[in-house]
Amino acid sequence: MPCKLIFRQLFEKESSTYTYLLADSLHPDKPALLIDPVDRTVDRDLALVKELGLKLIYAINTHVHADHVTGSGLIKTKVSGVKSIISKASNARADLFVEPGDKIYIGDIYLEVRATPGHTLGCITYVTGDGVNQPQPRMAFTGDALLIRGCGRTDFQGGSSDKLYDSVHSQIFTLPKDTLLYPAHDYKGFTVSTVGEEMLYNPRLSKDKETFKNIMQNLNLSYPKMIDIAVPSNMVCGLQETKSDL
Amino acid sequence: MPCKLIFRQLFEKESSTYTYLLADSLHPDKPALLIDPVDRTVDRDLALVKELGLKLIYAINTHVHADHVTGSGLIKTKVSGVKSIISKASNARADLFVEPGDKIYIGDIYLEVRATPGHTLGCITYVTGDGVNQPQPRMAFTGDALLIRGCGRTDFQGGSSDKLYDSVHSQIFTLPKDTLLYPAHDYKGFTVSTVGEEMLYNPRLSKDKETFKNIMQNLNLSYPKMIDIAVPSNMVCGLQETKSDL
Repeated sequence: MPCKLIFRQLFEKESSTYTYLLADSLHPDKPALLIDPVDRTVDRDLALVKELGLKLIYAINTHVHADHVTGSGLIKTKVSGVKSIISKASNARADLFVEPGDKIYIGDIYLEVRATPGHTLGCITYVTGDGVNQPQPRMAFTGDALLIRGCGRTDFQGGSSDKLYDSVHSQIFTLPKDTLLYPAHDYKGFTVSTVGEEMLYNPRLSKDKETFKNIMQNLNLSYPKMIDIAVPSNMVCGLQETKSDL
Repeated sequence: MPCKLIFRQLFEKESSTYTYLLADSLHPDKPALLIDPVDRTVDRDLALVKELGLKLIYAINTHVHADHVTGSGLIKTKVSGVKSIISKASNARADLFVEPGDKIYIGDIYLEVRATPGHTLGCITYVTGDGVNQPQPRMAFTGDALLIRGCGRTDFQGGSSDKLYDSVHSQIFTLPKDTLLYPAHDYKGFTVSTVGEEMLYNPRLSKDKETFKNIMQNLNLSYPKMIDIAVPSNMVCGLQETKSDL
């Protein structure tokens, strides 16, 4: 039986972050998860979850963000039973740690975990399942590994342009070309892309590896204004005061 | 045969406007249209049209906008053969004027025109066609008639809260409940809603008519900062210097 995914893309304008809400509408509980929630927009997101009659079970992150504070910890203080998830490789605090190949289920719909380091050491991409009972076309939540016509910077948090190139080419560009790409950010007003499009038109990642590394070495970006607040906070699930129940 | 719609939602952050790109991917020409393009983001939108291999045939507006200058006229100067469309009731300039019940075709996919006055006299909502060969679920591009958990103001440009209430209840809330609603703006980071959701949770339009009219009379909104530039310009397709070919 085909699945019926409830899907919402939500935007936080200060950091230009996209948060994604996914739920299985055919399961009696309508179990749901949020990908990359932002602390400032937690109330908006939880109100929507409630209005849609969903049961939020996971708050998951693609990586330890440097530009905003995750909403995962705050969500856990507001909705009982929600588990936070991040990659084991991130070394950050969460309830559950995932590794490449792991599957995260909401009802009958699942996300597959793919390691896509390069922006940070612990970056992962969540990809909807492969099969007729999973969303068609597939959807990949790429975090900062692959942005629409761009990619995350590679000059801090264990970043490596060499690794990022390999990650995108081996883990994302090998997906079907019609796979929908949903990044953690967009700064130009785009909401979605596809694998086929980025393979052709991404101005960085469509190039050969040496050209890509050269581009990334010469971006001359300024120091991220939020990094000294966001990273320590996000290492502990977005709550700076560590709590025993997180 | 089911249709295959190419669909993109694009955001212009200064005016928080959504522009929508629709195309029929199964037609050899991949004919496309843009709904509510903004002058500032025309180059972005046309680059995307080109990269996706589409043939833009229409630039259409839901109404004469007061908060931004339409990109329709500018698009016509950059892409030959594009026709601008607006409602006959708007009294604005365009190549084609539509009335309730008219259909706008791109390949085998069509948009149906519904009159939804109240924000302005000439507001229309474009709804994807009814039938198995049209996008499922249906999609309604509501302009400023119905926003996510809100609606457009009714205190200028021939606005009427009485008319807006009737428009939304008779022309939008009568669509199937799973119809996806795509407004011309969002200020809180939402990207889409459904008829069922707005019938239940729209804080204005879920109320009875008298309550709605009372809410709208007491919004105490400031004078729109762009109105004196945008409206005269949008009356002539977004180009202040009227040209013989527009």
